[in-house]
Amino acid sequence: MIVAMQETATEDQIQVVTEHLIEMGFSVHRTTGERQTILAAVGARSDFDTRNLEVLGGVMEVHRISAPYKLAGRSFRPQGTIIEFKNGVKVGGKEVVVMAGPCSVESREQLFTVAELVAKAGARALRGGAFKPRTSPYSFQGLGLDALKLLREAGDKHNMLVVSEVMEISQIEVMLPYVDILQVGARNMQNFNLLRELGKLKTPILLKRGIAATIEELLLSAEYIMAGGNYNIIACERGIRTFETYTRNTLDISAIPIVHKLSHLPIASDPSHGTGRRDKVAPMARASVAAGADSLLIEVHHNPDKALSDGAQSLYPQQFVELMDSLRMIAPAVGRSIA
Amino acid sequence: MIVAMQETATEDQIQVVTEHLIEMGFSVHRTTGERQTILAAVGARSDFDTRNLEVLGGVMEVHRISAPYKLAGRSFRPQGTIIEFKNGVKVGGKEVVVMAGPCSVESREQLFTVAELVAKAGARALRGGAFKPRTSPYSFQGLGLDALKLLREAGDKHNMLVVSEVMEISQIEVMLPYVDILQVGARNMQNFNLLRELGKLKTPILLKRGIAATIEELLLSAEYIMAGGNYNIIACERGIRTFETYTRNTLDISAIPIVHKLSHLPIASDPSHGTGRRDKVAPMARASVAAGADSLLIEVHHNPDKALSDGAQSLYPQQFVELMDSLRMIAPAVGRSIA
Amino acid sequence: MIVAMQETATEDQIQVVTEHLIEMGFSVHRTTGERQTILAAVGARSDFDTRNLEVLGGVMEVHRISAPYKLAGRSFRPQGTIIEFKNGVKVGGKEVVVMAGPCSVESREQLFTVAELVAKAGARALRGGAFKPRTSPYSFQGLGLDALKLLREAGDKHNMLVVSEVMEISQIEVMLPYVDILQVGARNMQNFNLLRELGKLKTPILLKRGIAATIEELLLSAEYIMAGGNYNIIACERGIRTFETYTRNTLDISAIPIVHKLSHLPIASDPSHGTGRRDKVAPMARASVAAGADSLLIEVHHNPDKALSDGAQSLYPQQFVELMDSLRMIAPAVGRSIA
Amino acid sequence: MIVAMQETATEDQIQVVTEHLIEMGFSVHRTTGERQTILAAVGARSDFDTRNLEVLGGVMEVHRISAPYKLAGRSFRPQGTIIEFKNGVKVGGKEVVVMAGPCSVESREQLFTVAELVAKAGARALRGGAFKPRTSPYSFQGLGLDALKLLREAGDKHNMLVVSEVMEISQIEVMLPYVDILQVGARNMQNFNLLRELGKLKTPILLKRGIAATIEELLLSAEYIMAGGNYNIIACERGIRTFETYTRNTLDISAIPIVHKLSHLPIASDPSHGTGRRDKVAPMARASVAAGADSLLIEVHHNPDKALSDGAQSLYPQQFVELMDSLRMIAPAVGRSIA
Repeated sequence: MIVAMQETATEDQIQVVTEHLIEMGFSVHRTTGERQTILAAVGARSDFDTRNLEVLGGVMEVHRISAPYKLAGRSFRPQGTIIEFKNGVKVGGKEVVVMAGPCSVESREQLFTVAELVAKAGARALRGGAFKPRTSPYSFQGLGLDALKLLREAGDKHNMLVVSEVMEISQIEVMLPYVDILQVGARNMQNFNLLRELGKLKTPILLKRGIAATIEELLLSAEYIMAGGNYNIIACERGIRTFETYTRNTLDISAIPIVHKLSHLPIASDPSHGTGRRDKVAPMARASVAAGADSLLIEVHHNPDKALSDGAQSLYPQQFVELMDSLRMIAPAVGRSIA
Repeated sequence: MIVAMQETATEDQIQVVTEHLIEMGFSVHRTTGERQTILAAVGARSDFDTRNLEVLGGVMEVHRISAPYKLAGRSFRPQGTIIEFKNGVKVGGKEVVVMAGPCSVESREQLFTVAELVAKAGARALRGGAFKPRTSPYSFQGLGLDALKLLREAGDKHNMLVVSEVMEISQIEVMLPYVDILQVGARNMQNFNLLRELGKLKTPILLKRGIAATIEELLLSAEYIMAGGNYNIIACERGIRTFETYTRNTLDISAIPIVHKLSHLPIASDPSHGTGRRDKVAPMARASVAAGADSLLIEVHHNPDKALSDGAQSLYPQQFVELMDSLRMIAPAVGRSIA
Repeated sequence: MIVAMQETATEDQIQVVTEHLIEMGFSVHRTTGERQTILAAVGARSDFDTRNLEVLGGVMEVHRISAPYKLAGRSFRPQGTIIEFKNGVKVGGKEVVVMAGPCSVESREQLFTVAELVAKAGARALRGGAFKPRTSPYSFQGLGLDALKLLREAGDKHNMLVVSEVMEISQIEVMLPYVDILQVGARNMQNFNLLRELGKLKTPILLKRGIAATIEELLLSAEYIMAGGNYNIIACERGIRTFETYTRNTLDISAIPIVHKLSHLPIASDPSHGTGRRDKVAPMARASVAAGADSLLIEVHHNPDKALSDGAQSLYPQQFVELMDSLRMIAPAVGRSIA
Repeated sequence: MIVAMQETATEDQIQVVTEHLIEMGFSVHRTTGERQTILAAVGARSDFDTRNLEVLGGVMEVHRISAPYKLAGRSFRPQGTIIEFKNGVKVGGKEVVVMAGPCSVESREQLFTVAELVAKAGARALRGGAFKPRTSPYSFQGLGLDALKLLREAGDKHNMLVVSEVMEISQIEVMLPYVDILQVGARNMQNFNLLRELGKLKTPILLKRGIAATIEELLLSAEYIMAGGNYNIIACERGIRTFETYTRNTLDISAIPIVHKLSHLPIASDPSHGTGRRDKVAPMARASVAAGADSLLIEVHHNPDKALSDGAQSLYPQQFVELMDSLRMIAPAVGRSIA
């Protein structure tokens, strides 16, 4: 941590800050320049609240130096993390892993129809919501356990991984027998109670960025899970809130190369939620692969006009097939492949 | 709902949209102008996803007309909601109700010291965290049930209401015997499972705005609770995320008059979390009252430098006393009073 | 325009609004539903300030229907605009036109070195700043007219177009003999006096999006130029300001497909300014092409460490060559090519 | 400046960074901790682009220490700046100076009517636009020189200062004989050519914050003017762009105490542009005074429904009178007064 004192700071104020730092367990190096004194504090807790120094008399600015994440930081595993699954799929390797499926599991017929078509087109994981708490209490709330069973059966049939969202601690045990990847939604990115429980598992976690979360906060949430022992995390960009109103959120494509620089974790992109509109999904999926994404989440429905949720952002089957074809042309440009 | 068709829309496209609307249960009024056709759809579900129309061929824009909240809307109770408590305190009435206390309950001595001083200075409710899931798993996690018991005892001693944050459904039952107001934090504003359970209670809810939530979304979350039968809701502005980096969040003071216009619910302001820095709390508390806030949440600690959480944003006792004095001068300018 | 009245609106209030609309030149269609009255106003000025209605008694919401831009709108030229230059380069056609060069023209040697290398690598336009008003009055301010002459000479030598930024009306006449494209910077996107003068020219304009401008506002500024008679406009995404702090701005890649949907104008992307960091330029350039960009602006310097401005975001020569190679692999996936 | 090297940085990389810093004129202090090396660079140019270091090999983070503004910084004039005018009005003193008037000067009758009523209600300065470049080329463009003459005459009649916006360098000379304060609009906050010219004057400048500008950038623009010799600057908050859509911009009230902490300059608030809606102007004006604003800009029109620009945000005469009355009650709570 670096504390820059004001030019007008008194020697007494400098002493108070120094003692405060020592009391917190830091060792302090002092540099007195022409204009001001700078204190460099090293060696202590990474969770220190720098505002406690900012409000002390004579303090101009405080800068936290050590990146507050260690396990999630690039230097922890400079070669990058590859998460390998039983069916041979690797997230973080050369292949860009496409996860596709409907927003919600609505029926056996719906799921098996969609599963077959995305599998044939090259998807390696089947995604689908089982629990869907909705804005309106009168809307479809998901099929729950039945959805999970259908996902597993359809996934197995087509040799696809199964991804579904966990929303509460109580759902973890229910879901574990059926899913290969537990998805944490944007609203739960900082639900630390949930993250703590997920840290006790070995099941890979797909951790979505909150719509108002910085990339650093996303990595801190990953760190939280890793601190519990679960290192199998896929970060996921899915759009942030900006002043632009044409799309619900702004998919921050730059998060892809930034996560790759700051962290060893694989990074996925979700252009379906990131744009909220079917006609923007394909260009943003292509952009994500071109920017280096390790995985894509794409919502597909065999009949989007009848979808019980998020139909407007679901691709038609043929659109998905064409998207996969174009991705296969882009991937080699960044040294990657698509199944 | 209003659907504006593109100038180039064909008659077939207009028919497809019209049929789609009728199928969804709307009745459709068509206006054909010189340049384009406009379809007004009335009478149906308020939870309709307008994007389903936006992606149809020939559609230029879709505007939702009916405000999607009814119970939380001003017209539901034009005179405004006043929440009355057993000890006579009314939130939403003439008095601006100040809720104060430490960020976390740390010990009996701490809580009773703070409670006494804020009560004497005019606070009508005692706030304090019992459960504190923190970014770092190594940080202080709250005293839990013990904290709740201390809050109740200290509140009763000084005739103050007790406010504390509920983070999970499982905590509701534990908290109910001890608190007068259940606070929902910004991160849980759209935790619909939690909101649904809170809708079954009669206990007043203090509902904080998420850091990326629009005012409309805040009111929709209030609507969600009200739909379950609990109409005792205090909305709370606590800062939104913007590009400005000097403060952690930007306290959106304009939310106060806007909520008053759109809704009958009382609106509180939390300048402590909204600014994150002690030296900005007092001016923003004064601004909140001047803008018409019905209630204030202020963090106070008898020894902020030793606080186990959020010390930097906690006022010193004397600062709180002086703040209350200045608020007493401002309140009459907007037809209000402070205890 | 659509005016939705409140459920509680009186007949008198509805009359006041209706008369107001008629006075403004609209014809009004009234729909009275079960819950509320809706007024559809058609046929009048597109620059009407809807807030004048919002503040009338009994009004709930006002929605502007007609897109406020006509000349810039897709329906004005459904087939898209292609801007053709004397040297055969077409912006908006099949080829993705890469414009590259240093941030500022610093010297003859610098410019000719960079020009040669970017031309050989496939750039079709040479970009470079002649006037550089800087944050600090002590920084390098640009070579002015000398820079323009050098740009023209270097451009001609390598058969490249010349692009440079115009900052004030007084610079237009000075620049016209030397440049093929006048660039309008993000800060001037709403400098309507400047836009008006540019509307009188036939010289193509590269119009950058302001860092806080919506896509609609970008197109409205294009409309402003077009209203003067200059239809040769290239819109340009260059990053918007968000809460994310890792990069200076967030390059909004989704603006590319959105501009293509809303407008017939070609859209360029500037990943150099959009990220501000050399190591993010290549992935974001690739993402831009994958998303359908018609043109790219890339800063390149033969010795970025010695650049007089923006060296940190300038590519090294070899990086530019490699980027162009990867773009040549991506372009065919979206039906495009790179020189 | 502080450069934190990565844990994995090699000695060679540290040397490269050190030499780079020395070459730029810094002296370098090196601290090697258990985990990493930190370089503190002191004594050189404040306009250094830190990104030049960020892109060097082995560098983890760079923090700029010295506040990049000196003349505008609090320590330059710890007692605060008071700008005194010939008629005795002082901005930055005990009195909160209210500047009021129409958005645009439309006619002699309009201006004199409004001037009289705001003067009687306590306004000390008359504001009004003379040049109004508008989004639509067909809208009212302002009365120009005639407006300036009317403003001066009306101002003199009621002993009010005259404030009007300068948009181009060419307007400065025209305006100087007529105005007491030159206003720089939000869009021109970083028009450095204009700022440079204003720095050569002694006429006070009212400098509005850009809608996407940080507070630091606002103060840097003030610094730019001051560097030219004009120290008479009033900073002005007028709303920033956020994701909230109910108001056009979000008036950042917290900018008021922050500017007071960081700078000695007076800070004004413009709730008319900051909210864009008449019904939000009064609460936000009250909030601004309660937060410590030194001045207010309020748009008032004797007949807002007929205003040629921004009628929706103009107060009716009686609303302004009532607002002034309530401000007179609030000001003493923060040790201020209103005329």
